[in-house]
Amino acid sequence: GASGFTLGHLPQSWERASIGGYAATRSAGQASSGFGRIDDMIESVTLATPIGTWSAGRVPASAAGPNLMQLALGSEGAFGIITEITLRVRRLAIARRYEGAIAPCFEAGIDACRELAQLGLTSAVIRLADEAETVATLSMSGPVGVKRKIFDRYLAARGVGQGALLIIGWEEHSEAILTARRDAAWAVLKKFGVVALGKGVGATWEHGRFSGPYLRDTLLDSGYLVETFETATSWAELPNLHDVVRREALAALEDPEHTPYVMSHISHVYETGASLYFTVIDSGGADSIKRWVAAKAAISSALHPAGGTITHHHAIGREHAPWLGAEIGPVGMGLLRAIKSELDPTGIMNPGVLIPVAE
Amino acid sequence: GASGFTLGHLPQSWERASIGGYAATRSAGQASSGFGRIDDMIESVTLATPIGTWSAGRVPASAAGPNLMQLALGSEGAFGIITEITLRVRRLAIARRYEGAIAPCFEAGIDACRELAQLGLTSAVIRLADEAETVATLSMSGPVGVKRKIFDRYLAARGVGQGALLIIGWEEHSEAILTARRDAAWAVLKKFGVVALGKGVGATWEHGRFSGPYLRDTLLDSGYLVETFETATSWAELPNLHDVVRREALAALEDPEHTPYVMSHISHVYETGASLYFTVIDSGGADSIKRWVAAKAAISSALHPAGGTITHHHAIGREHAPWLGAEIGPVGMGLLRAIKSELDPTGIMNPGVLIPVAE
Repeated sequence: GASGFTLGHLPQSWERASIGGYAATRSAGQASSGFGRIDDMIESVTLATPIGTWSAGRVPASAAGPNLMQLALGSEGAFGIITEITLRVRRLAIARRYEGAIAPCFEAGIDACRELAQLGLTSAVIRLADEAETVATLSMSGPVGVKRKIFDRYLAARGVGQGALLIIGWEEHSEAILTARRDAAWAVLKKFGVVALGKGVGATWEHGRFSGPYLRDTLLDSGYLVETFETATSWAELPNLHDVVRREALAALEDPEHTPYVMSHISHVYETGASLYFTVIDSGGADSIKRWVAAKAAISSALHPAGGTITHHHAIGREHAPWLGAEIGPVGMGLLRAIKSELDPTGIMNPGVLIPVAE
Repeated sequence: GASGFTLGHLPQSWERASIGGYAATRSAGQASSGFGRIDDMIESVTLATPIGTWSAGRVPASAAGPNLMQLALGSEGAFGIITEITLRVRRLAIARRYEGAIAPCFEAGIDACRELAQLGLTSAVIRLADEAETVATLSMSGPVGVKRKIFDRYLAARGVGQGALLIIGWEEHSEAILTARRDAAWAVLKKFGVVALGKGVGATWEHGRFSGPYLRDTLLDSGYLVETFETATSWAELPNLHDVVRREALAALEDPEHTPYVMSHISHVYETGASLYFTVIDSGGADSIKRWVAAKAAISSALHPAGGTITHHHAIGREHAPWLGAEIGPVGMGLLRAIKSELDPTGIMNPGVLIPVAE
C-alpha cells in the first residue's frame, strides 16, 4: 500500500483471514488471475510439527527432489501449525483500468476468456458471470428506468440479449503496455461478439467487490437459504460442468414450496482451465439446513465425474472430506496417511481433517 | 511446430531426453524464464508404483489438500515409473526478437534483470553472463580484427569496459505488445547502464544455443577438464553466492600445473531470484577426475551456507545426494523416507536415489 508494494491477494474473507490460514487452505483471491494464488506467492514456510520444526522452500526454484513445501500448503492444520511464511510482494501497478463488457452468452464468454488466457492476455482480474448471475448483478447494481431501456437497446443493437457480464481489471507497469495488451485483448473479445460496457461497470464491481459475504449474512438473517460452493476444471469440460452442477443444484432444492435461484461466475482463469463459483438462493424456511446438506451432497458427488475438483479455493475441512478420496484416489489417500503418521505420529493435529480418524 | 503450438521446453539435452525424464528431474529449459519450468507445464501425471497406479493432478488448480503431484515431479524414479503426462502447450509467438546487450558489470546486470523480473518485463529468454563468460563468449563468437576494435570503442564510448553480456529473447502475441514491453524493458535497462548490441548478437546466440554439450565433449576428448554445475538463490544473495562459488571452484582446482577458468551466467530469472550456471575449464591431465570430484565436493558444500540450492535444474541423482539433507533438513528427509516406504515398501525403485539405502 503506502510503501508501493502489494501482495495482490484479495479474497472476500480478508477482513477475518490470516496469512497462515491462506497457506493452510490454498486460498485464491479476486485478482489471482493476474497475481497468482497464495500457492504462487509463498517462497518458504515453517511449521511447528509434533516431531519438530519443519521448514520447506527458500530459493525461487530448485530441482532438489520433490517440492515438499507443497505438502505444507493445503495441509489444513493436519501436519502442524504454520509459524512463519516468506511471501513475494509486487510493486503497485502504474496503469490501472477496470472495465465491464458483455458476451452474447456464457459459452461465448468462456471461449473468449479461454482465448485470452491462452494468448497470455489475462488481466489481473477477470470474471465472467453466467446468464443467471448477469441478470441478478444488473438488477441489483445495473441501470434502472429509462437508462435501463437505453442499455437494453444498446445491447440489442449489438446482437446481445441477456448475455454474460464480464469484468476485466487491468493492472500494468505502464500505460503503453496496458494499451497494447488491452488492444490485443479487445481484438480477441470482439471476435467472440463481446460488447464493451465501459469503465462505469468496472468501478461498480470494484466498489462492491468485498460486499458479497455481508449481503449473504443479511439474506440469511432474513430467513433465506444462501450458500456458495466452487470448483474448477479444464476449458473443454467447463460448459458441461457448469450445466451439470446447475441442474443438480436446482433439482436438489426445487420443491412445491421453493424456487431456487442458482447462478455462477468464472472467477479465476488459467491457460488450461478456469474456476466456477456458484451461489444458490431460495426463500428458505425451517428445514433450510437439512435441504442444503442434501443438496450439497448431491452437488459434491456430481463434481468429480464431470471433471471438477471438490474445491478450487475453499479447501477440504470437514464438509468436503467425504469427496477427497474420489479425487486423489487410494494411493493419494495413502500418501496423506503416511505423511500424517510421519509428522504427527499420535494424531493430535486437527484430527479428522484430510485424513479420516480410524473408527 | 507445424501445428502452431510449442511446449516451450528447450533444454540443451533435448536430443537425448524424454518427457518423463524432464518431469522426474524437474528440468528447466533455455526459455523457461518465459515459458516456465517443466513443473509449470505439467497438468497431471501417472506413475506405475510398486503398490499400484498413482495419478495426480488433473484440473488447472485445486485447494483439495496438499498438491501431491509435486511429489511425483522430481521423484527421480524412486517412487515409481512415470507412464503418462498431460502437458500444457502454447501457441507459437507471432512477434519474435532476439537481441544482445551489455551491462557495465555483472552486478549491474543482476540489478537490471531483477528490476525486469519484478516489473513483469521478463522475456522468454533472458541470460546474463558474468565478466569471465562474457570474455569467453565474445572471443569465440564475437567480432574479430578491425570489427573488434570498433566494437571495443563503441562500448568504451558508452562507459562499458569488459562488461556482462545479456541475451534477451522476446516472444510475444503481437508486434504492438512486443514493442510496448521492449520499450518499457529498455527504459529499465538504460537506468542500469546497459548498452544495446542489436539483433546480430541475439542471432549468434540462437544459432549456437544447443552446441554447448558438443563443445564440452570435444574439449573432454582433447584431454581438458570441463564440467558444469548450477544453483539458484534470491536476488539479494545472488552476487555473494556467485563470488563464493567462483572463489571455491578456483581455489579447489588451482595448482602449479593448472590455471582453471571459471565462468557463469544467469539462465533463468524469477521475481524473487535467479539461477546461476557455472562452467569450469582447465587443461586437465591424468588426475582430472580425482581433482574434479574434490572440487565438486568443495563447491557443493559451499552452496547451502551461501543461500544456494544444490541444484536448480540438474536434479539430485547420486552426485548431489550427500547435500540433499542439508537443504531439506531432517524432517524433509524423514518425509521422503515415509513417502518411499508407502509407495515402494520393498525399496526396488531406483535404490539409493533421494533416500539413502540403509547400510
